[in-house]
Amino acid sequence: MEDLKKKVHAQISLAKQASRKMAILSRKEKDEVLLAIGHQLLADQAVILSENAKDIVTAEADGQPASYLDRLLLTPERMAQLVDSLTQLVSLDDPVGERINSWTRPNGLFIEQIRVPLGVIGMVYEARPNVTVDAAAIAIKTGNAIVLRGSHSAVHSNLALVTSIRQALAATGLDAEAVQYLPYAEHASVDYLCTANGLVDVIIPRGGAGLIQRVLQIASVPVLETGVGNCHIYVDEAAHYDMAESIVINAKTSRPAVCNAAETLLVHRSWPQDNQRALLQKLLAKGVELRACERTLELHSDLAVQLHHATSEDWDTEYSSLILAVRTVDNLSEAIEHITAHTSGHSEAIVTEDEIAARQFLTAIDATAVYHNASTRFTDGGEFGFGAEIGISTQKLHARGPMGLPALTSYKYVVRGNGQIR
Amino acid sequence: MEDLKKKVHAQISLAKQASRKMAILSRKEKDEVLLAIGHQLLADQAVILSENAKDIVTAEADGQPASYLDRLLLTPERMAQLVDSLTQLVSLDDPVGERINSWTRPNGLFIEQIRVPLGVIGMVYEARPNVTVDAAAIAIKTGNAIVLRGSHSAVHSNLALVTSIRQALAATGLDAEAVQYLPYAEHASVDYLCTANGLVDVIIPRGGAGLIQRVLQIASVPVLETGVGNCHIYVDEAAHYDMAESIVINAKTSRPAVCNAAETLLVHRSWPQDNQRALLQKLLAKGVELRACERTLELHSDLAVQLHHATSEDWDTEYSSLILAVRTVDNLSEAIEHITAHTSGHSEAIVTEDEIAARQFLTAIDATAVYHNASTRFTDGGEFGFGAEIGISTQKLHARGPMGLPALTSYKYVVRGNGQIR
Repeated sequence: MEDLKKKVHAQISLAKQASRKMAILSRKEKDEVLLAIGHQLLADQAVILSENAKDIVTAEADGQPASYLDRLLLTPERMAQLVDSLTQLVSLDDPVGERINSWTRPNGLFIEQIRVPLGVIGMVYEARPNVTVDAAAIAIKTGNAIVLRGSHSAVHSNLALVTSIRQALAATGLDAEAVQYLPYAEHASVDYLCTANGLVDVIIPRGGAGLIQRVLQIASVPVLETGVGNCHIYVDEAAHYDMAESIVINAKTSRPAVCNAAETLLVHRSWPQDNQRALLQKLLAKGVELRACERTLELHSDLAVQLHHATSEDWDTEYSSLILAVRTVDNLSEAIEHITAHTSGHSEAIVTEDEIAARQFLTAIDATAVYHNASTRFTDGGEFGFGAEIGISTQKLHARGPMGLPALTSYKYVVRGNGQIR
Repeated sequence: MEDLKKKVHAQISLAKQASRKMAILSRKEKDEVLLAIGHQLLADQAVILSENAKDIVTAEADGQPASYLDRLLLTPERMAQLVDSLTQLVSLDDPVGERINSWTRPNGLFIEQIRVPLGVIGMVYEARPNVTVDAAAIAIKTGNAIVLRGSHSAVHSNLALVTSIRQALAATGLDAEAVQYLPYAEHASVDYLCTANGLVDVIIPRGGAGLIQRVLQIASVPVLETGVGNCHIYVDEAAHYDMAESIVINAKTSRPAVCNAAETLLVHRSWPQDNQRALLQKLLAKGVELRACERTLELHSDLAVQLHHATSEDWDTEYSSLILAVRTVDNLSEAIEHITAHTSGHSEAIVTEDEIAARQFLTAIDATAVYHNASTRFTDGGEFGFGAEIGISTQKLHARGPMGLPALTSYKYVVRGNGQIR
């Protein structure tokens, strides 16, 4: 294990050294390498796809489900998308060097707050090989070095992608060591990465709750926690039927596996019975399994045969599939209380025509994004207009919600004087 | 231990519940309670001082040094200073509710980024009882609840102070549970606080390197790392003598125990020999022990009897006392390399009349604050004009450098639509 630790630390140290060169690159230099990466990925496409095929064969042999294989799979179309996202990144402003603030003190000291890269980013992620390219590219654009550690099930794909990225870095005269990949199967390699204080500035875990918890437990390096979304839609008594239906159906069914999908529907008991019934029927027709509270079951006894009983566990479950918990509440306060008790702090929505109720909800609910009359599905860097996203933070420190380029920066104070002492 | 864990969690849960009420207080309500705390502290002064006397007696019996006893001691003057700092806090703007940014998306969604409190702050600190009041007051001003855990050696003082604070909260109609103190001697109480994910939003450790390391190792809650300062002053060949002397003497001797004091002096070998000698003599005359590199010893063989040999350890030591490591460097690049290898990322200064050298230094050095022609001693919330400070962050995430009120806030996205789906 000591040997593995040395190997991991050696790679991180190379990244740390390279990070100093990355930090002082101009926007032009960084954009050039991003375009070069795109060209290299296309030039190496045959190799990358054949390495990806090895991972697919192993995953099939391991009996992984179709959804897993789909996430692992690279295709010429997906490669083209990767290259597109690089081009989009080039069009974004470089946050590094931005003067966030400046002021002069009474003693004449001139203080500037200047945006700088974080330094070395450690990225621990699962399955999707596209994260390898996205994360490396965002790190480069923000002047950082990055140490990647993807699922071992994607190791051939990831290594092939990283080889192309490093080749493009070298070809444009930059330090290829700025992008490192830890190819080790051992989970200990993740532990060494997460405890490399002084070498690594931040760990970003992207994946399931198990991965994130493991990283949080072990890490002494600061972590940007991403992920879990137990999102609610509250349909108020003053909700328009059509809007409620469209938002609930969208939030639950458009992509049930993602973190901004809805998991629980709360309905005001005074919302017209016909509306309630129509909404539940529409959900059932869309193939959604409904797990309803006692009151909902009583109110809609005619539908009861199609409804399941919700247990207390349901209120805390991120189904990530076509299942929706349903609860009837007495009023707005009860909805706020329910959400406060069960929210994962991701995205929460109210549907209502009542402005006062909306304002109360938006103020009281403590979550990354709170919505009035819109689907929770919009909590996403692209939808927010950030252009690029490294993940969605569900913690409150540093960055909350969709994290664009500035989330991968810090700042330093540059202080100029003429001999001031204290 | 399970019993202690339950007790700690019970207190944190009370803080968590109270945090929801704190988050929606107006500036007026928060300022009123701060003033009430000041009145209560003065009203309870006799009790507080007599409780403090108990801690002093114990510390004396334990053979603690005079500097320790001084930090522990409360006096009527220090109580008055505490009350003054509360009044100053009242004069500061409330960051909560500030609209940081807002924009409309092409689909009509209106997105606002609104500053909100963090929620529950866990504060782990050593000795000084004034931190108890400062931290609780800053937490209240920023709409947070706080769970305090000071040194057990100050437990009587801290409990007396917290009693006054809670009484003032209750007297102004607020929830006294917003300020909790963990009075347990067991270090495990710190561990339970630092792993209370979902209840505590951030841990701020303030104290020696041992305390901070312990918290970093154990914490799964995000940590705002404060502290260690291995600060350098680089005297360039183009430095004015008077300015160099004044800055070096100030940075080393004005308050050697603090984190923004200088620990290493780097001198360009081409800076006039007479200047070098005069500066070293001045430092010696001020009672500073000098630990010099080989080259410095050779250059100043006439002073050699008064100089100590520096060992490699000296370059990484925060002396926190009247000791200074001294190294002669060939040029600016060697100075930058030395600092890069040994900096703790706190505060670093260059003294020079050469603007180009200054700019190179300010750009290349990766630290919280980089200075040109000013003392490192200015890295401080008060000196930066922040009005209040909860600590000095030496990490790059969330907040870097002196942390004022905004460092105790996060933000949420408030999104308003008219039925948008994705």
